[in-house]
Amino acid sequence: MYEINIDKIISEIIAFINEQLKKAGFTRIIVGLSGGIDSSVTAALCVKALGKENVFGVMLPYRKSHPDSLEHAKQVAEQLGIKYEVVDISVMVDSYFKKYAAEADVLRKGNRIARERMCVLYDLSAKYKALVAGTGNRSEIMVGYCTQYGDNACAFEPIGHLYKTEVLELAKILDLPDFVINKEPSADLWEDQTDEKEMGITYSKLDEILYQMLDLKSGKEEMIKQGFSKQETEKVEKMIRNSEFKRNMPPITRK
Amino acid sequence: MYEINIDKIISEIIAFINEQLKKAGFTRIIVGLSGGIDSSVTAALCVKALGKENVFGVMLPYRKSHPDSLEHAKQVAEQLGIKYEVVDISVMVDSYFKKYAAEADVLRKGNRIARERMCVLYDLSAKYKALVAGTGNRSEIMVGYCTQYGDNACAFEPIGHLYKTEVLELAKILDLPDFVINKEPSADLWEDQTDEKEMGITYSKLDEILYQMLDLKSGKEEMIKQGFSKQETEKVEKMIRNSEFKRNMPPITRK
Repeated sequence: MYEINIDKIISEIIAFINEQLKKAGFTRIIVGLSGGIDSSVTAALCVKALGKENVFGVMLPYRKSHPDSLEHAKQVAEQLGIKYEVVDISVMVDSYFKKYAAEADVLRKGNRIARERMCVLYDLSAKYKALVAGTGNRSEIMVGYCTQYGDNACAFEPIGHLYKTEVLELAKILDLPDFVINKEPSADLWEDQTDEKEMGITYSKLDEILYQMLDLKSGKEEMIKQGFSKQETEKVEKMIRNSEFKRNMPPITRK
Repeated sequence: MYEINIDKIISEIIAFINEQLKKAGFTRIIVGLSGGIDSSVTAALCVKALGKENVFGVMLPYRKSHPDSLEHAKQVAEQLGIKYEVVDISVMVDSYFKKYAAEADVLRKGNRIARERMCVLYDLSAKYKALVAGTGNRSEIMVGYCTQYGDNACAFEPIGHLYKTEVLELAKILDLPDFVINKEPSADLWEDQTDEKEMGITYSKLDEILYQMLDLKSGKEEMIKQGFSKQETEKVEKMIRNSEFKRNMPPITRK
């Protein structure tokens, strides 16, 4: 797609993390670890910025989460040498759906799981006086592939400016385990969910389109000239437009 | 403080609500009803904008909530003629604190309660295909008197541009019951909590200071010339500064 300068990216993120903590008057970070690439890279960068003693990992399994997720997250925490805690969210999530919304589909359940994780992370944020680091990347933020007030809720987004394909490069440089790097991206909110299947597009294609559209600011005509199809261009445009609300504060009536 | 034009305020809010729903492709609104003045006024304005059949109220009592809160909220819903549903959040909240955070103080519990309400409102938002109307007013938004990703989480803020004292005027014009209008403002997150006690300032004083500071853009010197004390001016300045993060999206590392 284009050349990236990994060293520069890493030092910019480290500076950003330190700046955010200083501004908020905090010295510690808490991060939800899913065993996936985004949270692993985020945690690794936080450790680089603050030292392992100031980064705290939290695993938030749901009873239907893939068992590998917890196992991988633990191994990442151990490799990074950070303290961690496991909070099983099943009882909180299930008690709501059993009593009030037994008819809910997987999407509602998945969104609730993501929000439950936010609730726990924010409570532990208060307990440990640690800021919640977000783990969103530019690809998912721009197309809104996240739960509103769930996984997109955080104090700051250290890798929010990087496309998923860039996060992958970072993971390699940061020496994260192969099982993190080679895992198929998934929110793991329901069985057999994968990001690419759910979005209907691969990250490699999505990132090329987003880069052309957002960074090179190509219009539709130019996109097609560059070899992208009208259909895929319009699909991504629509995803960006429909998720605008997730990237903005709730609007307020004007005075 | 200054003259307000209630008719103009109401018609602007109605236009705003309709514009927000149109933009999002929704026709219905869901609003959490606490029995307090902000949510009652918000619901009444939503009814004015969309008709009572398109507004849905949700009461979200916790076992320690004041019993009046639920009773008053029901009476407001009945007066407005809107459908409503009661979702008791005790079991979800308690199951977390019993198992994982028995040591938590009232502030952590209160924040969790506010976030639990958000979780339920957003799930019902998906169920009923209805946007979540926020109930925040300008006074609390500007000083950050709200739970991050709790009661400040919504699709839009119809009364977010109005000071608390203006909301009170609106409540009278909208013929809301006296028990709503005369009730001492409280988040009702723990026993004997009141907004003014917790903030350490009355709304009437706070709103005068905010108006002078934010709308008339007076600096500290001018504030003191206008009769405000240095101490109260600095207190409010600090509240505004310290809550800035609640009024902005999580920052992202710059490219």
